Amino acid sequence: MTSLVIDDIYNNTLTAYAISAAWELGLLERLESSEQPVDLAGFALEQDLDAPSVEAIARGLAIAGIAVLSPGHQFATPGPLFADTWAKKGFFYWLTRGCGDLFRSMPELVRNPNRTGDYVVRDYKAIGLAARDAGFSYVDPAFYKIIADRGLRHGADLGCGSGERLIKLAGRDPEFRGIGVDFAPGAVALATDSVASAGLGDRISVVRGDATRMAYQPEFGQVDFVCCFMMGHDLWPREECLASLKLIGEAFPAATDLIICDTYRSDLPTTEQHPVFTLGFETAHAVMGQMIPSLDEWNEVLAEAGWQRADVIDFDLPPYTALMHLTRERPGA
Amino acid sequence: MTSLVIDDIYNNTLTAYAISAAWELGLLERLESSEQPVDLAGFALEQDLDAPSVEAIARGLAIAGIAVLSPGHQFATPGPLFADTWAKKGFFYWLTRGCGDLFRSMPELVRNPNRTGDYVVRDYKAIGLAARDAGFSYVDPAFYKIIADRGLRHGADLGCGSGERLIKLAGRDPEFRGIGVDFAPGAVALATDSVASAGLGDRISVVRGDATRMAYQPEFGQVDFVCCFMMGHDLWPREECLASLKLIGEAFPAATDLIICDTYRSDLPTTEQHPVFTLGFETAHAVMGQMIPSLDEWNEVLAEAGWQRADVIDFDLPPYTALMHLTRERPGA
Repeated sequence: MTSLVIDDIYNNTLTAYAISAAWELGLLERLESSEQPVDLAGFALEQDLDAPSVEAIARGLAIAGIAVLSPGHQFATPGPLFADTWAKKGFFYWLTRGCGDLFRSMPELVRNPNRTGDYVVRDYKAIGLAARDAGFSYVDPAFYKIIADRGLRHGADLGCGSGERLIKLAGRDPEFRGIGVDFAPGAVALATDSVASAGLGDRISVVRGDATRMAYQPEFGQVDFVCCFMMGHDLWPREECLASLKLIGEAFPAATDLIICDTYRSDLPTTEQHPVFTLGFETAHAVMGQMIPSLDEWNEVLAEAGWQRADVIDFDLPPYTALMHLTRERPGA
Repeated sequence: MTSLVIDDIYNNTLTAYAISAAWELGLLERLESSEQPVDLAGFALEQDLDAPSVEAIARGLAIAGIAVLSPGHQFATPGPLFADTWAKKGFFYWLTRGCGDLFRSMPELVRNPNRTGDYVVRDYKAIGLAARDAGFSYVDPAFYKIIADRGLRHGADLGCGSGERLIKLAGRDPEFRGIGVDFAPGAVALATDSVASAGLGDRISVVRGDATRMAYQPEFGQVDFVCCFMMGHDLWPREECLASLKLIGEAFPAATDLIICDTYRSDLPTTEQHPVFTLGFETAHAVMGQMIPSLDEWNEVLAEAGWQRADVIDFDLPPYTALMHLTRERPGA
């Protein structure tokens, strides 16, 4: 029992599982908001949870200093690492819950004969919750500022997901019009419903479409900007990305601005300290067979596709994530 | 990106997944046995694995110092933590592979309404591989010594699994006779086959039976010892365990020796350094709704059931695991 480092790696893994569980079960939030020590058995009773399991989860937090337990484990309070955990919980949730099945079954998924069809199972609901929490929202203010500064009022969101981004833009500008595009029928249905619920059916439309095969439609004619969040890497490798960007440029002939926000390849040497997310993101995409371009590779292909770099905003969280703002002369002008 | 500790917890989790994958894929063994740096792309080609995924797994090892990568990630060599990892890989495999689904879905499994039926999914093949590797074999020599010292020649193995233990005992003593008992039909079939393959069908029989409801059968009459490995905790809580032990004592009337080897509850304060396995084992069993007795609780119930403690051998690996050797006067003598 002398090799403490390897033992810590083991126990930190349990802590990661415990963070995800404690967040999903509301225990992290209770620790964050409660002014009194949290009575674990009382919390379990109130939430109809198994009390010994809640205690085990709290132990997983406590061995890492995220929580502090009273000697009999009746009560938990936030520990010295609680604030950092609270800030980064979404990344843990992405790892063990959203991609938990991918990482568990990684040794199978790496064997070439198994890499056919939809061979990867991920929990996209968990990934969505994780992404919303994990600081991707830090990105939004920078995005809104570009839209306002450039006076853009008609946007197409490729990979629109729930449609939330377009709905928010419509809420900020009463004349804003938007088109959501997504390849997943579930996302198209969800976005359509969300737009209708927001009473924005007259200003936002949602269509099914493949970002790698965009083609002009009459309703695309007035779009003045195209944005693409957290899925630009799906357009790669390079030649495919270049072709897709050209099609996008032609499909939206009036678009002067292109905004791509994505996590890029870190090329971080293994001898350097790694932040959260980076190695998880890069490993998951390797397993999924999806290359992740570096920021240089992005810059180069965007230039070749005819887009001038206006600005690149690099975020601390998520790490190695940039908002790339590109412009072009209005083709017809 | 300044909270290095929480980032390390995240990255250690990836390392744990990487250890399990590298072991299953043979990469750990290659690193252990190769006198040259391991050519990762060559290894992937040879084993028909996806090369970028193998590189990602190697990065997961390298960020923790288990492997060292050449600057371009072409080659890997064992790192300073390799020997510890090699010694403890089975515990990681138990965690992320054998119990990976349990820990991934822990937040669901903790909700009382979900805790009905067979609500826990574990990979028992992976657990078996992990257990065989994870030092449970350290236990065997102590066990064989007791059998030899006490001149025991006719054993019943409750929870016999693959039947390996009885087959080994039969190999050490040409007059040894054994009865394997297991509740799982798959184990009964496997043990029956293994015994037949070993040509021991005349000396070892395998029967389906529930260790909590043992009852005398004529073939149990000559059994002079009963053993029970890594499943004694399934007999608990206390009153059920006491009842089961009494039934076992009656079902094997000539048994003078009882040998129980099991991992017991650590009661380790969260402020102390934890070894591998302990918190994982205790958390998994909490989620499964199975209490784990402490060594004191074992001693007390065994005494009440009429067994005298002959010896308790406590192992370093697996941690908090003891081989309890008990004896009684031969009831009829």
